[in-house]
Amino acid sequence: MRVVVLSGGVGGARMARGFDRLSEVDQTVIVNVGDDETTHGLHISPDLDTVIYTLAHKEGPHGWGRADDTFHANDELGRFGVNNKFKLGDRDLALKIFRTERLQTGESLSAITEQARAGFGISTRVLPATDHRLRTQIKLPDQSWISFQEYFVHRRHTDEVTDLRFAGSDQAAPAAGVLESIVAADLLVIAPSNPPLSIWPILAVEGIRDAVERHPATVAVSPLIGGKPVRGPADRVLASLGLPAGNEGVLAAYQGLLQLLVIDETDAADAPDLAVEVLVENTLIANPEAAARLARAIVESPN
Amino acid sequence: MRVVVLSGGVGGARMARGFDRLSEVDQTVIVNVGDDETTHGLHISPDLDTVIYTLAHKEGPHGWGRADDTFHANDELGRFGVNNKFKLGDRDLALKIFRTERLQTGESLSAITEQARAGFGISTRVLPATDHRLRTQIKLPDQSWISFQEYFVHRRHTDEVTDLRFAGSDQAAPAAGVLESIVAADLLVIAPSNPPLSIWPILAVEGIRDAVERHPATVAVSPLIGGKPVRGPADRVLASLGLPAGNEGVLAAYQGLLQLLVIDETDAADAPDLAVEVLVENTLIANPEAAARLARAIVESPN
Repeated sequence: MRVVVLSGGVGGARMARGFDRLSEVDQTVIVNVGDDETTHGLHISPDLDTVIYTLAHKEGPHGWGRADDTFHANDELGRFGVNNKFKLGDRDLALKIFRTERLQTGESLSAITEQARAGFGISTRVLPATDHRLRTQIKLPDQSWISFQEYFVHRRHTDEVTDLRFAGSDQAAPAAGVLESIVAADLLVIAPSNPPLSIWPILAVEGIRDAVERHPATVAVSPLIGGKPVRGPADRVLASLGLPAGNEGVLAAYQGLLQLLVIDETDAADAPDLAVEVLVENTLIANPEAAARLARAIVESPN
Repeated sequence: MRVVVLSGGVGGARMARGFDRLSEVDQTVIVNVGDDETTHGLHISPDLDTVIYTLAHKEGPHGWGRADDTFHANDELGRFGVNNKFKLGDRDLALKIFRTERLQTGESLSAITEQARAGFGISTRVLPATDHRLRTQIKLPDQSWISFQEYFVHRRHTDEVTDLRFAGSDQAAPAAGVLESIVAADLLVIAPSNPPLSIWPILAVEGIRDAVERHPATVAVSPLIGGKPVRGPADRVLASLGLPAGNEGVLAAYQGLLQLLVIDETDAADAPDLAVEVLVENTLIANPEAAARLARAIVESPN
């Protein structure tokens, strides 16, 4: 069974790990690159790295970064008056350094990601949504635009998000294999990631929204549990962008794309109001077993 | 007393640390950049880093790299099939990352070195010989040319060196302050570094050889102890380039530049044959006290 997962960072990576544990599933994960950033001259792809580390069972204790990492290089950078608040672990740095060097030699992000995947011995395919430069930018109430990392890391996602744009999306073609894998998928899963911040930048890549719209079996897993995301500002971002509260907002964010929405048991009361088929499950997937259970429920869903 | 030291890596760094301990000395160290290299996309300046780490008393146990460093990033790079034999420590990586990023923004190597110096709280001025690209290349018996790091690190300086060239030296101007500090120096010291491999690339920068020739008080400290260098291939390189054995070879490498040559006690028998004033001292300066003692002997020498 060919499953394609559209993924942001931690939530998407955990969902992908669930499908990775189902022997009958041949999985491709298409990952958001709108959060990519250059930090200390290094190309950082936060969501790609989180997906790779999680699939390799080497993710950090909060879901991002590497397990058991040290921060010697990052600490030392402070000596030179550099802003080192975006904490890069020493083991984590290796992938950043490798990627940056290969990009400089002209290799594509997807080719480099493939080498990283192989380096970690992961069998699931991991594709960036695009090899081109696409950057999520956030509009603040004062009308200024800031980068995703500025919003998320440096300002700790406390600002109200009044609009989003995906700089470069008009030039961004899907990476090799992205459209082909969506078309060939038996099941297309939008992971429990932040819909506007993590999934919209994937859909903004030329041709991807069309391919998702046309797919006959698209399932989204809501990132809300009890009306709130496990982490991050999804509920606040949906609200500040003028979308309804709760799972109605999630559904609105994916207007016209879904055949099924998976919501958490704690939000079962939402189901009757949603203009889509609904599957009610335990969607807390912090551990791999829970993720595999949810993945199985989705695979076995009649829709 | 203004002292300028021309320095390669470990030997020069240790000599500079000796002068650093003399309260009456105002020191400038002019450092070889012929060994600079791009590794994993990072700009490596081995001699500049060794001088800075040594002056900060943070050098590694063998004289290069950082004390108490870990190698997590370097080990991880191996996962991606990268050649990671040039072992970069995690703390050491911070300076490489900082330098590379600043060079990309257009800052000069000397400006970056000044920030690194300040970051380590070093009072001695440290200047790269040039801000331009200058690379020492080694000719092998088979007539091929290889880079310094290829010769030194990957091939462990086992090859016979039949010729040297300093690629880019015809375009390389001295960094700001280099010529001025030589002219203003009360004493100019060529450190116990490898004469052809570490000092010649400094002298190859436009105007530096002339300034050294004109300086009335230039002292070289021989890198030989008992006819052999403490480390590295200086004796073999002098021989394969057709220079005499022992301190005659060192003197020949500095033909026309010196008022005084400092040789080790174990080589005292060389003194009568050398066509220059000679100071015989204990030149083993692995520890800072020994280096300070040698520095004092040089400063107090009547020549």
